Order: sequence, then C-alpha cells, then structure tokens
Amino acid sequence: MVDGKKLKKQIIHIFKKHGLSNKHADIASSAIINAEIVGAHTHGLSRLKMYCDRIKKKVINSKPKIKIKKISQSISHIDANNSIGFVAADIGIKQAIINAKKTGIGLVGIKNSGHYGLSGYYAEQAVKKNLIVLCFTNAPPAVAPHGSRKKLFGTNPICFGSPTSSKTPFILDTSVSEINRGKIRVAAKTGKKIPAGVALDKFGKPTTDAKKALLGVQLPLGGFRGSGLAWMVDILSGVMTGANHGGKVKDPFDDFSGPQNVGHMFLTIKPNLFVGNFNEKIKQNIKRVKGLPKIKGVKEILYPGQNKQKRFKKNVNKKIYIPENIKNDLESLIAS
Amino acid sequence: MVDGKKLKKQIIHIFKKHGLSNKHADIASSAIINAEIVGAHTHGLSRLKMYCDRIKKKVINSKPKIKIKKISQSISHIDANNSIGFVAADIGIKQAIINAKKTGIGLVGIKNSGHYGLSGYYAEQAVKKNLIVLCFTNAPPAVAPHGSRKKLFGTNPICFGSPTSSKTPFILDTSVSEINRGKIRVAAKTGKKIPAGVALDKFGKPTTDAKKALLGVQLPLGGFRGSGLAWMVDILSGVMTGANHGGKVKDPFDDFSGPQNVGHMFLTIKPNLFVGNFNEKIKQNIKRVKGLPKIKGVKEILYPGQNKQKRFKKNVNKKIYIPENIKNDLESLIAS
Repeated sequence: MVDGKKLKKQIIHIFKKHGLSNKHADIASSAIINAEIVGAHTHGLSRLKMYCDRIKKKVINSKPKIKIKKISQSISHIDANNSIGFVAADIGIKQAIINAKKTGIGLVGIKNSGHYGLSGYYAEQAVKKNLIVLCFTNAPPAVAPHGSRKKLFGTNPICFGSPTSSKTPFILDTSVSEINRGKIRVAAKTGKKIPAGVALDKFGKPTTDAKKALLGVQLPLGGFRGSGLAWMVDILSGVMTGANHGGKVKDPFDDFSGPQNVGHMFLTIKPNLFVGNFNEKIKQNIKRVKGLPKIKGVKEILYPGQNKQKRFKKNVNKKIYIPENIKNDLESLIAS
Repeated sequence: MVDGKKLKKQIIHIFKKHGLSNKHADIASSAIINAEIVGAHTHGLSRLKMYCDRIKKKVINSKPKIKIKKISQSISHIDANNSIGFVAADIGIKQAIINAKKTGIGLVGIKNSGHYGLSGYYAEQAVKKNLIVLCFTNAPPAVAPHGSRKKLFGTNPICFGSPTSSKTPFILDTSVSEINRGKIRVAAKTGKKIPAGVALDKFGKPTTDAKKALLGVQLPLGGFRGSGLAWMVDILSGVMTGANHGGKVKDPFDDFSGPQNVGHMFLTIKPNLFVGNFNEKIKQNIKRVKGLPKIKGVKEILYPGQNKQKRFKKNVNKKIYIPENIKNDLESLIAS
C-alpha cells in the first residue's frame, strides 16, 4: 500500500527520467493514478513499464512537437507526433472544450497518438465544463469482425458523457466486445469457464475455455451490432483522422517495430443549444429511470458513471495497493 | 403482388385524402415504399393505417407549420409541429447536409416529430452527398433499463453512415436491444423458443417463451452496455432537443391521447476534414476486413448496409408482395 501523492511523485520522477517534460509527466501520471483510484487497474500502473519501454525504444516520442491545426472555429486536427497517448488526448479534449464553448460544437481528430488509458477520464473533463461529449479511439486487434475468425478491430470503446445536474457525471464508457478481456484473464487464472458465444479458439471454433479464448479472438457484442459499432469507431478515429486503422494499430506490449499511431476523435456539444432548461430535463430523465421497479436482487438502478464515481470517492484518500510484480517494476524503473 | 409505382401512387392518394400536401405525401410514401423494397416490412405498409388513424385523430398534424431555427451556420433546431415523422426527418437530414457542406460539420435537433421509419433511409441521403453521418431517434418504451424489470427506453437505434468509395454505402442501423422485437413476434407465431437472456416476462422473470416475452420487456444488448447506449440516444434525441424522453414518447399504435413528440438528432461531418484521401483509406479499410479468414459457413464478410443494398437491387423493379390484412387496410383506406 502506497500513499497516492507519494506514488504520483514517483511516477512523475520515472517519466521525467525517461525524458518527458514536467508537464507531460504530470499529465501522464495523473491519468495513471486516476485509473488506479477508480479500480481500472488494467489501465493504470500495470502499463507503466510498457510506456517506459516504448519511450526507451523511441516508439513513444518523449519530446513530441504536437501540432494543432485549426480547420475552423469548431474543428481542429492534432498531429501528436507519437507522444504518449495521455498527453495527446489531454490536449485534444481541452481543444474540443474550447471549440464547443466558442461555437456550440467542437470536433477534434487526433493522429499519431498512443494508448490513452480510460476514455471516461477525458469525457469527464468535458462534462465538468458542462458539455455533452463523445470520445472514440481505436486500439490494437482484439475483436473478430462479424463473420471472421481473426481479430482485427480493437475493443474500440464508445464513450458518451453528459452533465446530470448533480456532481456525478453520466459517463458511459463501454467496449464493443461481448465481455472484457480482463474477465477472460481472471477466468483463465481461476480455472473457470467463460460464457458461450463470447470468444473463439485459435482455430476459429467457439469455446468456453478461457485459456483457449485468450489464444483465440473475442467476439463482438451482439454479433453484427458490436462488429458494426467497432467498425464505426475505427472509421471515425482511424480512417478519418489519418491514424492507423483496419488492424494496423500496433500492440503496445508486443510490437516495438514503430509507433502505435492510434487515432482519437472527440466531439463536444453544448447541452443547452436547443432548450433552456437542460439541467432540469436531465434531472427528471434520470429520476424516472431510477424510480422504475427493480429486478430481484438489484438495490438501486444506476446510471453509467455512478459506480466509478463511488469507487473514486471511496478510494481517493486511501493508500493504493500495488501487486508484487508491479512493485518490482516500479522499483527497477526508479533505480534504473 | 403490386407494382411499386402503382402502389406509391395509391399511398400518395391516401395521404392526400388525409390532408397531407402533395410534397409531404410524396416524402412519406417514398419512405414507406423504400422500407418494403429493402425488406423492412415492420417499417413499411404495416404502419400505413396507424399513420392515417393518427392523422384522423389529429395527433399527427396533416398541415404542420415546421419551423427551422438557425442556431449557427452548423447548428439548426427544428420544431416539426407534430408532422408525420418522415417529413420532419427529411427536412432535418437535408438541413444537416446543408450545414455540413457549408462548415464541415452539421448538427440538427428535431422535436415534436413522430416515428420516421428507418434511420438508415436518412443516413443514406447524407452518405450520397459524401458525408459521414450519425442519426439518433428515441422511441416508445420497449427495453428495460439495466437493473429494472419495466420497459422505459425505446429500441433507440444508433445509425452510422459513411461513404465507402463504392456505390454501396456503409450504413450501420442497429437497435440496442438483444434481439429485434420482430424476431420475438415470429417465434411467438411459430411456437419456437427465444434465446435465454433477451427478455423478461411480465413479472420480471427471465423467459424463453416468446409469448410471455411479448407481454414482458426486452433486455438491452449486453446488459449495462446496451442500456447505456439506449440512454445516450434518449439524452441526445430527447432531452437535448426538447422532445419527449424518459419513457414519455407515446406508442403510435396504442396511445392516441396526444402527439408522440419523438425527438431526432442528426450529425453530419465531411469525411475529408483531416485527410485528403479519405476515399482511398476507407477502400483499404474495407478491403482488409473483407480479406480476413472466415468462420466456417460464412461466404463473405459484409460491411453494414451491404445486405440491405443487395435486397434493394433485387427487389427495386419487382412487384411488392402485400399480405392479406394489409391489402384490406389499403382497400378500405382508398375507399374511405
């Protein structure tokens, strides 16, 4: 267990040792700590060594010259120059916020970026500025297109955020695979079976064996539906922005042959463009859903983002648990 | 079997008899005929009597004064004055196309509308003008929010369109329920079971009995994922536009107590905002996915919209089959 502030200082120290500026080290560390606090450990410290390895191998650029091209008052294009993804996304969402505040709608396309952690982390920034937001990013191959037995799409999350009139924002941050890869990993470790219809083995046969699933491919949510949504995300964040797409985004853990060239697309909209009382309306909307009769065993109907906010509040002032292997990574990164 | 052109004339005649202008009757008839041609019979002739009944009961306004409010060069708000949904959506998508052609991005929110048929029909209009498009619409309660045993969200489709560099547009038009209501209806008629996990009976218990499912609720795609997506669509098309939302959109078949007040949101984007060679890139993208090894039994990996386009080509010059009950509706509407 480590104190969050102390841990953040350590991570900043590590990133600076790897050549990141004070500012970029701070942005990246904040995103990693936030992922740990909200319990998204797959997007936090477990990736720190990978980021550092990529910086060392020069497939993440520690001194990027990030270019922001203004297309219009509403629209910007960012070439992140292979920066660490956190920094590209942070600059991107801030630009999208500026654009929407100015014109009512903001659109920012980003190319030459990398894995940026949790989409919801950026969506939250926009919602805190009282904006509706959509975040799209592509990712390395993980999901087989509908009809195929080979992975090509990333888990390509769709992330939507909205103000709620309360302090807990509505943040939907969902991958388009049937289940999260993390769940398959846990099942493989504990020797449990995974549900039917969520994965294929390496020969393209349906499997409920978690270990075989990890060697095979994940299936998209609802067959053609999830496959289509993953494809949509690839078009918006990859094809449109000039980033890699169509299965060409490199795996950050395994492929050091070049930068990932992940693409992101952020859309921001003022919620009160059409109605004066958005806050009142969204409050009513949420109240109606929450007031519905519940399925047996369900205590409360939650909107997306509520659970994460609960975890954040619970953990923000607590010490952060670090597994043994990551502790070793951390120590060697500090010592190196 | 009826000739498509003759049938269209009949439908125009019927709508005009019910007070629609030449232009509005033509728009509505074209949408209905298109649904029949692409095989979406649930969105075609089977709804004609309902539309006419709603006009008669004055819950669809046959002579709407549709107001288009310009918020900016990119953004418009439409009050459809309870027009038939087809007309509101047709005006909406045309405005969204104009806005995007002018500024690179168009956003149109529509309130006081009704059921507009297939989202893909409007998305196609934008794609044919070489635009990327997202269409959202809410709908009467059909899907239970995650954790609830009562329906509140509509099937709230997400529709995304993109140019493909070929004549067949990429049109993803997917509801966010586990399976289409139509499939449950067919299962009920043929006495077949429905898959587990797609519906609850009227007591909130999971059921595989199609008849019980029809009296109960449909479940959202992937639990919280589909529920969150349906909620997102309700916020974008309902809460933001000033339309009904949170389960208040009226069922067009059963509830004649007032206009439906459905809301729509259309977003249009120039595909070449950030890259000069979008066409080449999307062509490559599609080629890569289509070239993947296939699951046994799959002949071709299709992108969303290809199947529909195939049906369109096959049927466009064929006569249209009309079931007996709809034939009776049609005859009595013509005679009345």
